[in-house]
Amino acid sequence: MPTTDPTLTFRPATRDDLPAIVALLANDPLGAQRENHVLPLPRSYEDAFAAIDRDPNNELVVVDTPEHRVAGVLQLTRIPHITYQGGWRAQIEGVRVASALRSSGIGRQLFLWAIERARAAGCHLVQLTSDKARPDAIRFYEGLGFRASHEGMKLHLDRPVRD
Amino acid sequence: MPTTDPTLTFRPATRDDLPAIVALLANDPLGAQRENHVLPLPRSYEDAFAAIDRDPNNELVVVDTPEHRVAGVLQLTRIPHITYQGGWRAQIEGVRVASALRSSGIGRQLFLWAIERARAAGCHLVQLTSDKARPDAIRFYEGLGFRASHEGMKLHLDRPVRD
Repeated sequence: MPTTDPTLTFRPATRDDLPAIVALLANDPLGAQRENHVLPLPRSYEDAFAAIDRDPNNELVVVDTPEHRVAGVLQLTRIPHITYQGGWRAQIEGVRVASALRSSGIGRQLFLWAIERARAAGCHLVQLTSDKARPDAIRFYEGLGFRASHEGMKLHLDRPVRD
Repeated sequence: MPTTDPTLTFRPATRDDLPAIVALLANDPLGAQRENHVLPLPRSYEDAFAAIDRDPNNELVVVDTPEHRVAGVLQLTRIPHITYQGGWRAQIEGVRVASALRSSGIGRQLFLWAIERARAAGCHLVQLTSDKARPDAIRFYEGLGFRASHEGMKLHLDRPVRD
């Protein structure tokens, strides 16, 4: 059974957490190229938070420690599919732990919590994609039992589709 | 510009298409192990169809030819994220073309249609995962401009999480 540190609090994010979440996402070599952590936050972040917040199948989850509010974050999305006899999947995206707390086990606790939440919500599968430029992350997921059975393929729409 | 065969019809699936969709999904070496194409269909397929149908961010798309109703299928899901400054992504899953029509170009037309639909809906990225046991599919996606930049990682919840 997962043993969870009782000092950690896992909870859905609120609007007040959004600046701290964006700061976490931006504090990363890949995230730094993609995010724009200025205050007030760009409106696009507010709009995305509102869209996630009103969707019962989408959830931003944060973890607090006694010393550090929003020590980690991930997004959990439930998706119904016809495949696997109409099975629901849980998808995880936007995972980040505060740099001072990496390798402390908080990321693993956050994942174990999210996996149990997906199981309790009736999902048969948890999936995510991890950039091949993040070998440490891939090992972390493998350590949780994830298998890199698939290619994670991306098409950025600012580039023209080949036709 | 994509040139679309004018005899093809792309449309959202209806409940009446569901048996044909399940038949397509089951007619495949991997799908045959996962699906249960009996009539009447297992209730789980009906429930998943209803969940997709009522979710404005989820869509089952089929393509008809003059001779073949439901010649191909895919599921298109729009997901709001905080990452990429609050960007929406489109995700594609459950892609299948009738075996008699594979390599006819219908799959490519269906994808080009879905990619344009994602772009029109404001998504900045289209993503999918493809089983590494399907090298032909991976080449097909690369030919559309997708890059296998990520590992597609799966955790089946019938197996215990390592702890």
